Amino acid sequence: MSTVIEHRTWRYATKKFDATKKVSDEDLETLIEATRLSASSYGLQPYHILVISNQETKEQLKPASWNQSQITDASHIIVFANATDFGEELVDDYVANVSQTRNIPEEGLRGYADFMKSKLIDLPLETKDSWTAKQAYIAFGNLMQAAAELKIDTCPMEGFESEKYNEILGLEDKNLNAAVVLAIGYRSEKDETQHYAKVRKSTEELFTLI
Amino acid sequence: MSTVIEHRTWRYATKKFDATKKVSDEDLETLIEATRLSASSYGLQPYHILVISNQETKEQLKPASWNQSQITDASHIIVFANATDFGEELVDDYVANVSQTRNIPEEGLRGYADFMKSKLIDLPLETKDSWTAKQAYIAFGNLMQAAAELKIDTCPMEGFESEKYNEILGLEDKNLNAAVVLAIGYRSEKDETQHYAKVRKSTEELFTLI
Repeated sequence: MSTVIEHRTWRYATKKFDATKKVSDEDLETLIEATRLSASSYGLQPYHILVISNQETKEQLKPASWNQSQITDASHIIVFANATDFGEELVDDYVANVSQTRNIPEEGLRGYADFMKSKLIDLPLETKDSWTAKQAYIAFGNLMQAAAELKIDTCPMEGFESEKYNEILGLEDKNLNAAVVLAIGYRSEKDETQHYAKVRKSTEELFTLI
Repeated sequence: MSTVIEHRTWRYATKKFDATKKVSDEDLETLIEATRLSASSYGLQPYHILVISNQETKEQLKPASWNQSQITDASHIIVFANATDFGEELVDDYVANVSQTRNIPEEGLRGYADFMKSKLIDLPLETKDSWTAKQAYIAFGNLMQAAAELKIDTCPMEGFESEKYNEILGLEDKNLNAAVVLAIGYRSEKDETQHYAKVRKSTEELFTLI
């Protein structure tokens, strides 16, 4: 079996983590770097990512997460928070970064900056929120996959109250919203769901070849 | 360098594909299977994926894609179309699949089915649309990463007119909407952008450790 398929078959939504096993600093560093390299629309990365190992914070988040044990048992809880609103600074900061990274004068990037602004700045607030959340989901999926490559287990979670997360983590003041969560760590031997057959739509149902 | 990082550094948004190089049937099969294995909320996979190699269809899509040459030069164009609306059948079909795959009587899954329905069916239409699109983005990101593992180039694209895509591909009648596109194939030697330094937010800017 190709390793591409092997990683993706090995991965499953871990329901019970072994609370005694922690992701090493080295692996965490690799996961953070892999996530940082995620693609995003225009490369703008309109989100912020919280990496939570503090047990007290995890205890606070648990009741806001349908009391799921993954929140307190997992090694780290990663919260992907999308920008709920943004202005020209999103593009300006990016262009400054391009200019510095690639050693191009900012003047030479002005046309491209104006193009991006014309596409983004006047979008309705709900469209902005949904667009930035989608970018966060790319990073989220990328991290889930990177973890599988390192044989680190994950549980992708949408089952939480984002308003309470925003309050606990102080996100609202920063125009951020907890969009999706990934618990990472190591599966408990007692998690029976690891032995369940994977349920997916068939190739015929999911794909059309043209 | 860890292969996890190596794959993600190698990948870039390919601006110019070599139109003479095609993804092999074997690799395409691996990519399709990798994408099929994508995680999604409750495992519902509320989207459909079109894999387009037909040159005539690609020519039709090009003017609806800001005339970007990737659409006609890439080996395959993958369109991720999210379900714009859904009813109980989304959950019922999934539960029937779980029942069959895991050999569990459907009665034993009724409580879980009702729970999913209570969370999903009465969502406002815009929330449904945005939620299904996010699930499609997980699959999209997963495919992009799987391609990189096989050293197949990709260009993630949001720059297209979804209404025109829906018309050309007959998606609207099926309650589907073209959410995001991935062009796959092989980079042209002439694509200068492959040599550009990657622009990303710094670790300090993008992450908060708690």
